[in-house]
Amino acid sequence: MALQRGPSPWRVSLWTRREASIPGVASILPGSRISSDLKSAVEGAGVVVLCTSPQAIESSGEVLASLLPASTPVTDAGSIKAGIVSALEKRLGGRFIGAHPMAGSEQSGIAAARADLFDGATCLLTPTANSHPQALEEVRAFWRETGCRITEMTPAAHDRAVARISHLPHAVAAALVQAASRRDPTVGALAGSGYRDTTRIALGPEELWKEIFLANRGELLSALSDMQGAMEQLKDFLSRSDADALENYLREARTLRKEAE
Amino acid sequence: MALQRGPSPWRVSLWTRREASIPGVASILPGSRISSDLKSAVEGAGVVVLCTSPQAIESSGEVLASLLPASTPVTDAGSIKAGIVSALEKRLGGRFIGAHPMAGSEQSGIAAARADLFDGATCLLTPTANSHPQALEEVRAFWRETGCRITEMTPAAHDRAVARISHLPHAVAAALVQAASRRDPTVGALAGSGYRDTTRIALGPEELWKEIFLANRGELLSALSDMQGAMEQLKDFLSRSDADALENYLREARTLRKEAE
Repeated sequence: MALQRGPSPWRVSLWTRREASIPGVASILPGSRISSDLKSAVEGAGVVVLCTSPQAIESSGEVLASLLPASTPVTDAGSIKAGIVSALEKRLGGRFIGAHPMAGSEQSGIAAARADLFDGATCLLTPTANSHPQALEEVRAFWRETGCRITEMTPAAHDRAVARISHLPHAVAAALVQAASRRDPTVGALAGSGYRDTTRIALGPEELWKEIFLANRGELLSALSDMQGAMEQLKDFLSRSDADALENYLREARTLRKEAE
Repeated sequence: MALQRGPSPWRVSLWTRREASIPGVASILPGSRISSDLKSAVEGAGVVVLCTSPQAIESSGEVLASLLPASTPVTDAGSIKAGIVSALEKRLGGRFIGAHPMAGSEQSGIAAARADLFDGATCLLTPTANSHPQALEEVRAFWRETGCRITEMTPAAHDRAVARISHLPHAVAAALVQAASRRDPTVGALAGSGYRDTTRIALGPEELWKEIFLANRGELLSALSDMQGAMEQLKDFLSRSDADALENYLREARTLRKEAE
């Protein structure tokens, strides 16, 4: 949708796993070619973009290597990068450039598509020493066309950063729902927008998030330890009724949070 | 604003602490009487609504008792209830009915006012055995007129519930910002809407929230312990790479979170 709204719309060809989904996708993306046959979907592609689950992306190298000419750039939209980049560079070489657009919501499926979803969002690209300069240039152009701003880092730095700004928030939102509901599961019905905002991402699909958590297990465990430390500090100030320390802690959080506005 | 949008708008008289704020308030609420003199602000009032900070509400009983006829109903909008209700029943008797509209945002001040802020929100009322039935009826009518749906419970049950659905989410949002930023304070700038939603309330004013946390210290400490337990569980599943337990945990959180939709 984003690629087709400009004055010179891109030609988009979509692959979908189940043939039954084709009519639904076609009604939302009338200008696109849609197929459940991967070979015909990628035929003649200038750039191939993998948007399945992280595990499916990681294991797609062999089939793509057999279907694509050797120079076709490939990128993805997976939430973790180290495993994917290492697996796909092995199969596809330096024409694979990992990417992670920092946009989306708790919704999933084609019905949640929005043409402006990526506008102004950061897309993290994770090129390596193996990356082909030409492929990198074409992948950058692709993500810019969706509306994203590009930031580049190593796959490891990516996984460390998203453990903190994406995976930790999701884990914390789920734990917050569990803790808030522990004594009375109906308490959420009374809540205002504070609770709703803080826990919204816990509405996301558990199959996908379980997979993401396990794939970034080490970094997420380290982020969870920092979260426990931050909560321990807060509990300590509260136990001692230390009003000044409490106010400083909240002020510091408010100031740091402004970075994300 | 909410009270003045219907076919028979209420007459609203506002008190503001600083005379200098009057022109700003008047431009947003042109149909209201505005004064920095409390005596003239409450003169002839059918119901008095206290919307200052919890501490200021709690200590306002004596001056209100001296200014109001003995039967004028009084309510408030404070985020905690046990201390306020006990202090104001002592000074004002059963015509004080504690209230807490579950609406608002991280913003504060008159510039954040919106006519539809309370539409469909829950207003928690905390009448006690001392409450005058007539005052309770009039306070219910007032909060319904703002657009709220009313739920009633004891002050203690209120403080227990909001510790979990309001104060815990705020504490967790602040701790999450602290933990996410601990290794790299600039990481928030890369974040998508998941992190932004989860931490938005950490942008709220620290002076007010420090006061709320301390006033509901016991219940909040107990909620924080449950949160630490919920995170410990998650860490355990992750450490053992227990995919099924992880998926169940996330599914349970998603299901419980739907209560708040």
